[in-house]
Amino acid sequence: MHALTIASGRLEWSTRPDPIPQGSQLLVRVRSAGLNPADLLQLQGHYPPPPDVPQDVPGLELAGTVVEVGPLARRFKVGDRVMGLVGGGAQAELALVDEAVALAAPAGIGWESAGGFMEAFATAYDALVRQGGLTLGARVLVSGAAGGVGTAAIQLAAAAGAQVTASARRMEFHDRLRELGAQRVMLPSDAAESGPYDLVLELVGGPMLSAHLGQLGTSGRLIVIGVGAGRRIELDLSLLMARRAGIAASTLRARPLFEKAALVSSLGERLLPMLASGRLLVPVAATFPFADAPSAYTRLGEGGNLGKVVLISSG
Amino acid sequence: MHALTIASGRLEWSTRPDPIPQGSQLLVRVRSAGLNPADLLQLQGHYPPPPDVPQDVPGLELAGTVVEVGPLARRFKVGDRVMGLVGGGAQAELALVDEAVALAAPAGIGWESAGGFMEAFATAYDALVRQGGLTLGARVLVSGAAGGVGTAAIQLAAAAGAQVTASARRMEFHDRLRELGAQRVMLPSDAAESGPYDLVLELVGGPMLSAHLGQLGTSGRLIVIGVGAGRRIELDLSLLMARRAGIAASTLRARPLFEKAALVSSLGERLLPMLASGRLLVPVAATFPFADAPSAYTRLGEGGNLGKVVLISSG
Repeated sequence: MHALTIASGRLEWSTRPDPIPQGSQLLVRVRSAGLNPADLLQLQGHYPPPPDVPQDVPGLELAGTVVEVGPLARRFKVGDRVMGLVGGGAQAELALVDEAVALAAPAGIGWESAGGFMEAFATAYDALVRQGGLTLGARVLVSGAAGGVGTAAIQLAAAAGAQVTASARRMEFHDRLRELGAQRVMLPSDAAESGPYDLVLELVGGPMLSAHLGQLGTSGRLIVIGVGAGRRIELDLSLLMARRAGIAASTLRARPLFEKAALVSSLGERLLPMLASGRLLVPVAATFPFADAPSAYTRLGEGGNLGKVVLISSG
Repeated sequence: MHALTIASGRLEWSTRPDPIPQGSQLLVRVRSAGLNPADLLQLQGHYPPPPDVPQDVPGLELAGTVVEVGPLARRFKVGDRVMGLVGGGAQAELALVDEAVALAAPAGIGWESAGGFMEAFATAYDALVRQGGLTLGARVLVSGAAGGVGTAAIQLAAAAGAQVTASARRMEFHDRLRELGAQRVMLPSDAAESGPYDLVLELVGGPMLSAHLGQLGTSGRLIVIGVGAGRRIELDLSLLMARRAGIAASTLRARPLFEKAALVSSLGERLLPMLASGRLLVPVAATFPFADAPSAYTRLGEGGNLGKVVLISSG
């Protein structure tokens, strides 16, 4: 097979042996694979993949068709259309996906959306619901809302009955973010004084993060997912103490399979029906063929995308 | 009545009008009142009291006898021995306590223990159980464990079946902290490399806090209660992200009455039987008569106390 590989900080379209599914793994012919900021970090050498995945093939999510199943696989069979959440290796012609972290791709959903669903929605769901305790009526700020996780988070928070504020640098995206469910959309500079919030999903980091801490209400929580604008802050604990507030932070990639399986199980039970019915959308900013992956990485790195950048197989 | 008052940063034993109980308030003749770090901060002008309490009379906890009840009080009557959690005004001959934040003082508990129970145990219970999600078997570090909150936290965590580590500067206290339930007791410098922990109760702050962040395990939580050694830290969010860890912080004093009432209700249901049976102890480092309050404040400020410093009425 061919696979996108990282060698000396460069992307190449290389030939590799076809993987062989073991245990409950599925071998999937990849039709689409979303890009994520973690892929950029890995390309830059900052984010080593977990040990149980191909070390030099990036990609945390994919959609495609099952072409072979391991001896312990029970939930899927050859020919099924699936979406998978993996620790690496998704950006290839063939990828291994344990069936515990695979979901059936709904019939009405095209490959480009299916390939960009898993990582963004899993991250947003985990941060908002499982870590953030999102409940009806909560005042939520999605900071840096235009990307894949941000657009997922707006939709999930709105669907949960929250009062959703979104911040995004690009004014031309604001109307679309409103359509996705944000009741208020504003520039980051305005969001810095727009609280109080019960929950802030921080996708920007740096000085914005510090400003948003000041916007937490009583018992508010700031959940850190992205720190592209800076990962070090000066934290005045008395500010948190006075509000009984907290900060939590998370990445998905390095978690063990059983934890990802629990998360994917929740996604299947709770979000898949909403994706199938069209209530949840996967906004796609741009698609690129696998052979043109460097352009896709450049596009993601430049930022300013509304939704996902997705690689699409020509096959 | 006489009351301890703060004027221009000095403590005085002044004459004030007797308070009159309104609504569901109890008028309590104070027999004992524990000191807390918040009292020291108030004396230094750093911690203004909430608006609904005497502005210049310190004291967040007391024990005494009910001498009059407001027209809406139902749970207590004149003559009852009670313990109260208040936002201020406890260090006086007479104090107002809403019955929602009062508990019956168990018969076998002396005044000095009763007067030092509420604030320390409410703070430790709230931090460990309600904010920290303490459960059976959790690996817990109590950082700066010798004081009132620390000795309460050791006992509560041990009673909850946690694996309890305590840090304390003074070696001569280590045996006593083991008796209270700590399985490991160590110097702060050793605690800085003693993890991983599921839960750190931070009562010291400053560089210790930063070191303890590095000792959090997966999904660990650091709950900040005390920051005497420094309230500003440089926080590297990638450290939290890699461990899916979090920081929360809290103070009790400024919370509205209904929140304190919910907390005191839990204390009454869950901890009072353990206090009455002797399973929970209130270690008292020193007692002082009210008229010698300045010595008590000096003693608390010097630190190095095992347990509470408590003011005792001579009446």
